[in-house]
Amino acid sequence: MSNHVYKTIELVGSSTRSMEDAIQRAIGKAAETVRNLRWFEVMDTRGHIEQGRVAHWQVTLKIGFTLEEE
Amino acid sequence: MSNHVYKTIELVGSSTRSMEDAIQRAIGKAAETVRNLRWFEVMDTRGHIEQGRVAHWQVTLKIGFTLEEE
Amino acid sequence: MSNHVYKTIELVGSSTRSMEDAIQRAIGKAAETVRNLRWFEVMDTRGHIEQGRVAHWQVTLKIGFTLEEE
Amino acid sequence: MSNHVYKTIELVGSSTRSMEDAIQRAIGKAAETVRNLRWFEVMDTRGHIEQGRVAHWQVTLKIGFTLEEE
Amino acid sequence: MSNHVYKTIELVGSSTRSMEDAIQRAIGKAAETVRNLRWFEVMDTRGHIEQGRVAHWQVTLKIGFTLEEE
Amino acid sequence: MSNHVYKTIELVGSSTRSMEDAIQRAIGKAAETVRNLRWFEVMDTRGHIEQGRVAHWQVTLKIGFTLEEE
Amino acid sequence: MSNHVYKTIELVGSSTRSMEDAIQRAIGKAAETVRNLRWFEVMDTRGHIEQGRVAHWQVTLKIGFTLEEE
Amino acid sequence: MSNHVYKTIELVGSSTRSMEDAIQRAIGKAAETVRNLRWFEVMDTRGHIEQGRVAHWQVTLKIGFTLEEE
Amino acid sequence: MSNHVYKTIELVGSSTRSMEDAIQRAIGKAAETVRNLRWFEVMDTRGHIEQGRVAHWQVTLKIGFTLEEE
Amino acid sequence: MSNHVYKTIELVGSSTRSMEDAIQRAIGKAAETVRNLRWFEVMDTRGHIEQGRVAHWQVTLKIGFTLEEE
Amino acid sequence: MSNHVYKTIELVGSSTRSMEDAIQRAIGKAAETVRNLRWFEVMDTRGHIEQGRVAHWQVTLKIGFTLEEE
Amino acid sequence: MSNHVYKTIELVGSSTRSMEDAIQRAIGKAAETVRNLRWFEVMDTRGHIEQGRVAHWQVTLKIGFTLEEE
Repeated sequence: MSNHVYKTIELVGSSTRSMEDAIQRAIGKAAETVRNLRWFEVMDTRGHIEQGRVAHWQVTLKIGFTLEEE
Repeated sequence: MSNHVYKTIELVGSSTRSMEDAIQRAIGKAAETVRNLRWFEVMDTRGHIEQGRVAHWQVTLKIGFTLEEE
Repeated sequence: MSNHVYKTIELVGSSTRSMEDAIQRAIGKAAETVRNLRWFEVMDTRGHIEQGRVAHWQVTLKIGFTLEEE
Repeated sequence: MSNHVYKTIELVGSSTRSMEDAIQRAIGKAAETVRNLRWFEVMDTRGHIEQGRVAHWQVTLKIGFTLEEE
Repeated sequence: MSNHVYKTIELVGSSTRSMEDAIQRAIGKAAETVRNLRWFEVMDTRGHIEQGRVAHWQVTLKIGFTLEEE
Repeated sequence: MSNHVYKTIELVGSSTRSMEDAIQRAIGKAAETVRNLRWFEVMDTRGHIEQGRVAHWQVTLKIGFTLEEE
Repeated sequence: MSNHVYKTIELVGSSTRSMEDAIQRAIGKAAETVRNLRWFEVMDTRGHIEQGRVAHWQVTLKIGFTLEEE
Repeated sequence: MSNHVYKTIELVGSSTRSMEDAIQRAIGKAAETVRNLRWFEVMDTRGHIEQGRVAHWQVTLKIGFTLEEE
Repeated sequence: MSNHVYKTIELVGSSTRSMEDAIQRAIGKAAETVRNLRWFEVMDTRGHIEQGRVAHWQVTLKIGFTLEEE
Repeated sequence: MSNHVYKTIELVGSSTRSMEDAIQRAIGKAAETVRNLRWFEVMDTRGHIEQGRVAHWQVTLKIGFTLEEE
Repeated sequence: MSNHVYKTIELVGSSTRSMEDAIQRAIGKAAETVRNLRWFEVMDTRGHIEQGRVAHWQVTLKIGFTLEEE
Repeated sequence: MSNHVYKTIELVGSSTRSMEDAIQRAIGKAAETVRNLRWFEVMDTRGHIEQGRVAHWQVTLKIGFTLEEE
């Protein structure tokens, strides 16, 4: 972990199933275009309500990844 | 979502089962007396411990709803 | 709950399975050496990513317990 | 202002025109049902975007009012 | 404390005598209309100054109470 | 709004005219390169002073947009 | 901007017209006695309500200025 | 309270007797040199301990006052 | 105060009488087992309500002490 | 600095030598791909410990740059 | 440290050399006009970037000093 | 890093030389009695001033370590 530089991006994952699923979906989406994802941090947990129940969980994440050598 | 006014209230849901269940219980309780619930935001996650295990999950939520036209 | 004094400690639990399991593990570990655990509060939820998926959930908790009379 | 007790409520006003209009709308709505509104504080300013422009301004306010003697 | 749902409201108590008196006044006022008050948390301590001395203490509180079964 | 993933970016808009214009300029700039802009949140409002007057308003925004399916 | 030292002061501007006018008034007042005002940052936006409308906007600012060489 | 401009300063009052006395001392000191003190807000409450007891209470305050017309 | 190292611990004192008494009780309890207590900082003030009155004050403190040379 | 729009990105620089070196490394890395870097702000300072000493300093920065005209 | 009253002021020191030098410069500047400087606290660390390197470090400090008896 | 539990403690290191030295001293002191120190985070940077210069740097750290299996 010596002299690397990392970048963080902020994503919001959403899911009809659970907070953990919303997080996994955001990370899965990030992994489609970014290599070397290393860690995440939950910034905020929200959701939409329909008919008196949670319709979607929405979790805002910071995701950190290694900037590769060039 | 044009020119509506929304109100937010703060509830604490508790559950012996999970964080998500505590959230659903608070929203379900709000839905008994308030129509047009729209969104929620988790403010705080706490719990009580008994015999070295989580006895109750307690999640503090802000819940937003549309103020109806009069 | 009258005139007791409580102490809080900060632990980080980790789990490959879920946020709730990470919390239970931290509390279970604390219960090995501290009696009278009473409550917890989630301070931070993070995790490590491997191959585009959450590899470990890491939850930072404050845990409160009663200081016993001497 | 001697020994009064005040209550605060949290509203979100929205407007297609401006931040100030969103605030005025939330206060106007509160004034329909609450007497003795005294002050407000802006908690958050957000908005929705459509076609590359602000479509609605949304301002979250705390509004304080005097609880009347009974 | 099992599966209850709690609601929190925010009040500002004021008193010419002390911070604790301002808190007691806000709680006493809440107790006129709400049953089952359970806990409070101090959010802010302010006051007005007249002639170089504190004229009124103003303490903002969150107050939590149990929502009763229906 | 089901299972989408959103990304947020942080921009600072500046304007000699008003806070709202600074916000519109930042959003307009983002719209040149990003499709599907959905919402914004004001993080910070600052400005530069020249000759005892506001010379530029500078507003820091988080702007959220939908990551498109691939 | 090399080796200067800056000082910040905190002012609250008020206006019956708008947030921007409240800010301009605070800066204008500061400029009566302080030279070299350089930047400001909005800390808080509040106001007083009369008859269901905003009576005064009150904006708290930090204002920075260069300490001159002596 | 119309179009006034207010300034806030930050003081730390200390007292061997109580938090309220520490606050009164800071305000009393400010009143020696500043006219038109209007309000205060508690920012921080600290103290020094000697021989297992509070030796001094130290309370950090923001104090607001009207800038007079010139 | 030269090259010492200090440790801080977090305690919650409770009292039926006052905030200051809750603080003194937490410090007194700490002094039973820790030497060289030096300072404290109030983190949070809460309490329990019974029959419309404050039943217990609960004050969360950080307490700092010198780690002795070995 | 008139009507420009700026973007901020968040990077974490690490260094075995010092906090300042960690900051310089993050900025140097950003400069490989982004023109017009203008300012930075330190968000967080952390590090890894090996054998009772700091092994790496890790500094999280927000870095702002001008979005160029197109 | 008994019954003194302290005042805090906020300065921003800048330096082309290091964070510590920026702090020393702000304190040195304050010492030109204020006696009895006692402590400081770092509020913010920022800087300007030129040609991919830190051009100036800018550190915002609160500086506390004893108000003298009159 | 799988299923470990970590504990964090808060120390304040002080040094007449630099911020980094204050941090190293706190970590070095912790290492005298705790094994498996893993990471630290800077919470606060303060200092004492004598004769218009920094006399001591004081840095508050959270330090994390692995709780060993028993």
